[in-house]
Amino acid sequence: MKLASLNHGRDGQLVVVSQDLTLATYVHDIAPTLQFALDNWSILEQDLRHQYNLLNVGKVPNAFKFNPHDCHSPLPRAYQWADGSAYLNHVELVRQARGAEMPPEFWHDPLVYQGMSDGFLPPCADIEVGDIEWGADFEAEVAIVTDDVPQGLSADDAEPYIRLVMLVNDVSLRQLIPSELAKGFGFFQSKPASAFSPIALTPDELGEHWYNGKLHLPLQVSLNGQAFGAPNAGVDMQFSFHDLLAHCAKTRSLSAGTIIGSGTVSNRDPDAGCCCLAEKRVKEILAAGAATTPFLQYGDQVNIAMHDNHGKNLFGDICQAVVPVNTLKHSGNNDVTSG
Amino acid sequence: MKLASLNHGRDGQLVVVSQDLTLATYVHDIAPTLQFALDNWSILEQDLRHQYNLLNVGKVPNAFKFNPHDCHSPLPRAYQWADGSAYLNHVELVRQARGAEMPPEFWHDPLVYQGMSDGFLPPCADIEVGDIEWGADFEAEVAIVTDDVPQGLSADDAEPYIRLVMLVNDVSLRQLIPSELAKGFGFFQSKPASAFSPIALTPDELGEHWYNGKLHLPLQVSLNGQAFGAPNAGVDMQFSFHDLLAHCAKTRSLSAGTIIGSGTVSNRDPDAGCCCLAEKRVKEILAAGAATTPFLQYGDQVNIAMHDNHGKNLFGDICQAVVPVNTLKHSGNNDVTSG
Repeated sequence: MKLASLNHGRDGQLVVVSQDLTLATYVHDIAPTLQFALDNWSILEQDLRHQYNLLNVGKVPNAFKFNPHDCHSPLPRAYQWADGSAYLNHVELVRQARGAEMPPEFWHDPLVYQGMSDGFLPPCADIEVGDIEWGADFEAEVAIVTDDVPQGLSADDAEPYIRLVMLVNDVSLRQLIPSELAKGFGFFQSKPASAFSPIALTPDELGEHWYNGKLHLPLQVSLNGQAFGAPNAGVDMQFSFHDLLAHCAKTRSLSAGTIIGSGTVSNRDPDAGCCCLAEKRVKEILAAGAATTPFLQYGDQVNIAMHDNHGKNLFGDICQAVVPVNTLKHSGNNDVTSG
Repeated sequence: MKLASLNHGRDGQLVVVSQDLTLATYVHDIAPTLQFALDNWSILEQDLRHQYNLLNVGKVPNAFKFNPHDCHSPLPRAYQWADGSAYLNHVELVRQARGAEMPPEFWHDPLVYQGMSDGFLPPCADIEVGDIEWGADFEAEVAIVTDDVPQGLSADDAEPYIRLVMLVNDVSLRQLIPSELAKGFGFFQSKPASAFSPIALTPDELGEHWYNGKLHLPLQVSLNGQAFGAPNAGVDMQFSFHDLLAHCAKTRSLSAGTIIGSGTVSNRDPDAGCCCLAEKRVKEILAAGAATTPFLQYGDQVNIAMHDNHGKNLFGDICQAVVPVNTLKHSGNNDVTSG
């Protein structure tokens, strides 16, 4: 099943999207928002899947043309965004460039940070950066959305708790990271709002490409229309989503709608390219002593997508431009009328 | 105005509570949940205040007896929980005990971490700890709830964005913190669910005790019925809530319902006592070379409250016991029916 949230109100309007992404249908009589659907999944899933099946065979009378540009992130705001760093090639490279070895426990103890989730960006929304010297960067990742998860869940038992899969651009402000992490409390100012793919899909939609808690397909990133990287998300992922889920639930339960990210996808194969500017810069530093690729500049365009073996777009595109802060837009924030 | 959420469904049921905490009234025709009220504050505030005024003069026919034990945290789940560490006496002591100096920039650059917010504990709910060796601790703090906040807001402009004030017990697992912070990505497993006071109140309720973005009253903590500390939350707070709010909004906007915590309240006056076990243990280490106070044990009872100068309880009590994980309870999590 494929789900999306039209950009309406604070939580969007849930729609079911056809498998080929051409059609959509409102489902407000089943669930007004994706969070509502996740809160009541065991009761509502069957009804939503019924609409999906009807839509795919052209039997929903009020179906309309699906336009990913009308979408917000599937969860426009969420109660939890926990982002991992499961591709250790990325972690090793970044550390190597600053002359630091990777601690051996990193091979068996996942890195996960608590991210902000009070307001994500729509998949095609501008990334508003207050100061271009902050060193804005994209990070292309895969993410899952969970059901309610009990404290102490094991990785072996994790699969049934994975409700949805999405792509994400985890925006980072690289020049703010070193001083922030040095303070010891993790990221805050250096990780502004992320954007998710227009479509969230149930794992069964991925067929043979989803197994062992990993998505085995290339994640395609382009910058200003030029291919930037396409590493396979199922390769070199040291910790599967099962492992990440168990890590997150070790000391506490997780609520339905928790989003868990894979971290920047990264393959050891140098021909795979990169999923963020920082990794490319590190490779330049290791090869030639200095980075030549700049961080994002105003006007830069980032595109993130994933296609199956038949070239079918699975999640719709994340397509974002970097712009200065629009103060005019934000001055009206207090007049929001829809809950 | 005083607000609370009865423990019903995932988001609670909003009630308005009388100034003396004796009576409450449903307001579902105005706002079913506190998050809904915060999402639409400029439209709904007047109606809520009208009910509050009627309740205080005994003119709400369907008012009922208010029982804080029926409450969940005012926001049972939230889109953001950002916790500061504004009382540098606490930070200095903790560092001193491990022989580390406090970096000078800590005096002007606030420490804030992104906390989990997908499910808080009710104010009188047990703290379920999977392993008592994790070193469970309480942290008594003050917290604010914000309106929508634009990116780049200055501390001087922050006051009008503060909607509500609460107390919080920020539960910490001390023995998990060193290895987790050493990984560099901040807290995750070491910070399980927090609990907030039954009552959230608008700053005007605090009268002369609320100024310069600080709450100038003692925060009273007891452990197993014995007074443990009562430092004044308005004293030795290096960063006001105005400063913390500006810090949080530097690189991104904040959504209505964002909760910002003060960090463990701590005074330089040694007679003020402590708001967490870790600080008491540090003082023991500095005085005698070793800590004699243990971390929380199963069965321990923590109480956190604040009274005004006339002895009036302002927020109701946070009163929690430490217990093992109740696996039976959690096995039914998938059958939740109310959104």
